[in-house]
Amino acid sequence: MADTETGSEIVTAALLVIGEEILSGRTQDANTGYIAKLLDEAGIALREVRVVPDIEDEIADAVNALRRRFRYVLTTGGIGPTHDDVTTDAIGKAFGVGVAEDPRAIRVFEERYPGEPLSPGRRRMARIPEGAELVANPVSGAPGYMIENVIVMAGIPRIMQAMMEDVLPRLEKGRPVASRSVRVDAPEGNVAGGLAALQQQHPKVQIGSYPFFEETRVGTYVVLRSADTLLIEAAITELRAFLVREGMEHAEAEKEVSKSD
Amino acid sequence: MADTETGSEIVTAALLVIGEEILSGRTQDANTGYIAKLLDEAGIALREVRVVPDIEDEIADAVNALRRRFRYVLTTGGIGPTHDDVTTDAIGKAFGVGVAEDPRAIRVFEERYPGEPLSPGRRRMARIPEGAELVANPVSGAPGYMIENVIVMAGIPRIMQAMMEDVLPRLEKGRPVASRSVRVDAPEGNVAGGLAALQQQHPKVQIGSYPFFEETRVGTYVVLRSADTLLIEAAITELRAFLVREGMEHAEAEKEVSKSD
Repeated sequence: MADTETGSEIVTAALLVIGEEILSGRTQDANTGYIAKLLDEAGIALREVRVVPDIEDEIADAVNALRRRFRYVLTTGGIGPTHDDVTTDAIGKAFGVGVAEDPRAIRVFEERYPGEPLSPGRRRMARIPEGAELVANPVSGAPGYMIENVIVMAGIPRIMQAMMEDVLPRLEKGRPVASRSVRVDAPEGNVAGGLAALQQQHPKVQIGSYPFFEETRVGTYVVLRSADTLLIEAAITELRAFLVREGMEHAEAEKEVSKSD
Repeated sequence: MADTETGSEIVTAALLVIGEEILSGRTQDANTGYIAKLLDEAGIALREVRVVPDIEDEIADAVNALRRRFRYVLTTGGIGPTHDDVTTDAIGKAFGVGVAEDPRAIRVFEERYPGEPLSPGRRRMARIPEGAELVANPVSGAPGYMIENVIVMAGIPRIMQAMMEDVLPRLEKGRPVASRSVRVDAPEGNVAGGLAALQQQHPKVQIGSYPFFEETRVGTYVVLRSADTLLIEAAITELRAFLVREGMEHAEAEKEVSKSD
């Protein structure tokens, strides 16, 4: 599960986004970026994202494929009270365990709505796969849960974000990967050769290249990532020497480089 | 490849987003929503999205898994001139074909930059898997391509969007799925029972339920999708009768319901 690609033990994760509305283009997924950043800061490497529709077998297959390959699998969506919320049954199927009203989840609702009878919707949201630990939902009550290495959360960003606060402390953390960016005022093609050589000489620094277009100017952001800041420093020094030699304008850039791919 | 889930022959597709920068949270993916909408309008059902890093084997494995399950696989990212652009080699590996400088791609560059010698970067971007058809890139020249049912495009949104204009006319289209939304001023739990019954009675209409939160109000968007508008009409009539019976405020809503999951 851990590898040493960038010079440190890496804790890996995958994200499974469950939602027909994202695949149809009706809704723009806002959760991937949020979770990606949070995991990155915690030293957990997000290695794959999948978006699948609200279909039990497709969710179960994806969960089983991902939970064997990655240390953690986080899921968002499909744990509400309606007929199209099938994530919990899919999780039960993936793990081969039963799903039943969970006394701890029932208690959450009873304490939140004292004196009210439990509606069928709340009863449905209290159904939890056997062997799971609950994840708190301070926003609207209905809990998420964690079963083995799979963490099941709501799709509504506000609720997912609150759940992540309860989830993060329970996860094994890696050494956070540091990142530095250099903005080069030259097209990608002009730095390609230098970057390839640099990457060969610095195998433990992940060197990424991202073109940008601003009005009439084109340029390249070079992003260097490693858990070891000294290794990044050494690579950046060499990158700068190359850029000076080639007469290319450049400057250290903000970490937040672009809003689109 | 085609199924009849919502009452019409369905042409399916998957999207493979290739980009370490999205997994690390540095860049917010903007391509999925754009492609999802475009395919939806063309009657092509996007059934899965995957995001994987710029690692040859992971790209090849994902391409092979997806191209067998779906009518089309679209990919974005990783076809630029730098060392971290490994999509083309991954596609060659996935199909078991060679990758070589393509005379048609070389000609694109020669016509775009007459008299200029071909830089190593452009030569790299002219490498195309054997048997592929080129996809035009009017923005920056470097072509995408289509090999069997896999369409390989750039990750930069402006270029991907231009490529999609060349790609769409070549794809088999399905019957576009129509969509209507009803806004209900009641929490999801209160409509859950009615919606489940409605879904059972209208198996060829896909009925989705999406909660919303506005200041102190909570409510539910009910989205009905089908290739057959008469079937949607029949289901909506029954939905309205249910909502009137239960005394729940409701109104037909804009198609564009929410910006986040």
